[in-house]
Amino acid sequence: MENNKLHIISTGKQKPELLADIVGRIHPYIDCIHLREKTKTAKEIYKMVELLIDQQVPLSKIVINDRADVAYVSNAKGVQLAYHSLPVEIVKRKFSNLTVGCSVHSIEEAQMAEQQGADYLIFGHVYSTQSKPGLRPKGIDQLRSVSESVSIPVIAIGGIMPANIKDVIKAGTQGVAIMSGILEAKDPFETVQQYRSYLSS
Amino acid sequence: MENNKLHIISTGKQKPELLADIVGRIHPYIDCIHLREKTKTAKEIYKMVELLIDQQVPLSKIVINDRADVAYVSNAKGVQLAYHSLPVEIVKRKFSNLTVGCSVHSIEEAQMAEQQGADYLIFGHVYSTQSKPGLRPKGIDQLRSVSESVSIPVIAIGGIMPANIKDVIKAGTQGVAIMSGILEAKDPFETVQQYRSYLSS
Repeated sequence: MENNKLHIISTGKQKPELLADIVGRIHPYIDCIHLREKTKTAKEIYKMVELLIDQQVPLSKIVINDRADVAYVSNAKGVQLAYHSLPVEIVKRKFSNLTVGCSVHSIEEAQMAEQQGADYLIFGHVYSTQSKPGLRPKGIDQLRSVSESVSIPVIAIGGIMPANIKDVIKAGTQGVAIMSGILEAKDPFETVQQYRSYLSS
Repeated sequence: MENNKLHIISTGKQKPELLADIVGRIHPYIDCIHLREKTKTAKEIYKMVELLIDQQVPLSKIVINDRADVAYVSNAKGVQLAYHSLPVEIVKRKFSNLTVGCSVHSIEEAQMAEQQGADYLIFGHVYSTQSKPGLRPKGIDQLRSVSESVSIPVIAIGGIMPANIKDVIKAGTQGVAIMSGILEAKDPFETVQQYRSYLSS
């Protein structure tokens, strides 16, 4: 299970300096930090990447949400696309050096993203989460169905705690993506190690 | 004066199909159509380019606001950057096939954009305009100062009517950018020809 991935997704609410400080401390335990900053401008996200680099976070762990241009000019590892983003197949073809992840919410979306060449999927939200109030969670069964419907890695997102990581991995996923669970934890450094140990056991 | 440019900037309010229909009819009289659709997603802007292509608008006349990735994957002519965008010099270096315009509001910004390699500038707003309610216009004198401070082309924007084009061109600019004045005109096809004739005379 050593290969299970731990992705961290920025909350969109933390100050760039605070986020960079936290990620600078926890990055040895994570595989990816996604800058998902929907209200920030391209210039602001570009500067956030610089802050992460200043904190010794490797570019090979940095993924930019939606903005392929910011990912490309920053030499980040990749871009995370969603329904509202540029089509996966076009981004794959035109930005061939970027790893392209795709956020999906159904088997149909998952299969289409795989056909279009996505390198991996993020599926959720699996459990109830304060980030998606009032939206019914997909649950473990649907997570399993999605994982079985594609051959590319599926990362689970949404309300995942250390205690339920085992169930998530058993459902056929290759890892988990965590937002506030780690970034807003009292002690992110201790918490990331908890998640990591559950992923590896 | 035949080389004076006529740029059209989308209003962000017209339906994509209506905009494409209008631009499809007026494009022989314009040099550039800027898709400036701040509330639209990357996918929506990408689809707008497709609508323009369907209406026979040449890609060599299509410029995308802010999103270098959409411009690049669409094979559009260029990208129009502003203060909140990725830095001009980085976009120029990494997207070397794109023409890079920069929107500026002072001599300092104009000179910095030129130093960073911008291909042309858009400066404004020159006259009072309903797009910038309550904001004091820059005026013709400042337009002239900006034009004199750089050697790249300056395009004037903001409240420009056929009647004041002569003053704008005399101030040393290489053309004008028009939003609602043409796109929301009763008869855009007739109006674009009025602007064109004033630019050429």
